[in-house]
Amino acid sequence: MSFSPLIRQLIDALRILPGVGQKTAQRMSLQMLERDRSGGLRLAQALTRAMEEVGYCRQCRTLSEEELCPQCADPRRDDSLLCIVQSPVDVFAVEQTGFRGRYFVLKGHLSPLDGLGPEAIGIPELLGRVADGNFSEAILATNPTVEGEATAHYIAQLLIPKGLTLSRIAHGVPLGGELDLVDGGTLAHALAGRKTITL
Amino acid sequence: MSFSPLIRQLIDALRILPGVGQKTAQRMSLQMLERDRSGGLRLAQALTRAMEEVGYCRQCRTLSEEELCPQCADPRRDDSLLCIVQSPVDVFAVEQTGFRGRYFVLKGHLSPLDGLGPEAIGIPELLGRVADGNFSEAILATNPTVEGEATAHYIAQLLIPKGLTLSRIAHGVPLGGELDLVDGGTLAHALAGRKTITL
Ligand SMILES: [Zn+2]
Ligand SMILES: [Zn+2]
Repeated sequence: MSFSPLIRQLIDALRILPGVGQKTAQRMSLQMLERDRSGGLRLAQALTRAMEEVGYCRQCRTLSEEELCPQCADPRRDDSLLCIVQSPVDVFAVEQTGFRGRYFVLKGHLSPLDGLGPEAIGIPELLGRVADGNFSEAILATNPTVEGEATAHYIAQLLIPKGLTLSRIAHGVPLGGELDLVDGGTLAHALAGRKTITL
Repeated sequence: MSFSPLIRQLIDALRILPGVGQKTAQRMSLQMLERDRSGGLRLAQALTRAMEEVGYCRQCRTLSEEELCPQCADPRRDDSLLCIVQSPVDVFAVEQTGFRGRYFVLKGHLSPLDGLGPEAIGIPELLGRVADGNFSEAILATNPTVEGEATAHYIAQLLIPKGLTLSRIAHGVPLGGELDLVDGGTLAHALAGRKTITL
């Protein structure tokens, strides 16, 4: 009761957003209906276009509706440095530190128990990218979790024999944390303090 | 930089939602793109329909795409009780208390300095609703602010001469609260409105 069917549907639909419960979804719905319908319609259009058109960058596999994402399309970047992350949001986090090399975005981390092996997370595409590029160093910026460490170790074993210097972001990032929740200063320190990995 | 144009547009569009800043909008966007595109498209559809089709209930003026909202269409309510609130979200709050009379929803409160007089907040429609109905009591449930009090006072002066009993929701200490956390004005109201205890 209490809300009409279309308002109830809007409240329910908003709850797919992370961190949005019933009460927040109600406030969002009524505020848009009462004060910003054109903003609500713009949001609907932006959602439709993004959900239908955004794919993956051909080169780094981050989310992008263009064949090359802004980072891959930028000619003024350091082509000798490759930063390997496990999610598109981490590209944004690393960009904030001032890093201006190239990226490769894995689809998460290795998780054998969930059946997520090297193919599932994009390791073949990473090897293809490395073969096509001219990198001297690859920075492993997977999350500082057990799975992120294991994924970094696995990649190091594959890439060191190819003549690359492999480094891991320093443990200035808190263990067990998620990379995109770390503040920019901490992440910048972690990048600057990265350590070369040897086998 | 860092996000492709359609993703940037989605992040910007999400920021019209109350309480959603840049970081939250990023997380929402990437989570939908990576894990729930069908949910994102359902949200877009729900937004479009609600923004385009939701109007106002003919009788109580709450938000509704139907001519009569669920509360006005319900035949099993007490037609002698009218609860007057200043926003559609307040209908939901009062419903939660178990109230099962009728409602009238003002468009905010009187605010002469902002040029919001009786016509702007729907007083003529309220008088029409009272004339059409058969109410014996009207409960003034405008917000417990200076403006809400002034609006309640204004309405009481109009409706008492029409033979209705007018009441105002009680001010007092919130249930479950701690006395020393209650502001002085509220506590003064609670003291003044004290009730005799009988055994
Ligand atoms: Zn790219
Ligand atoms: Zn109604």
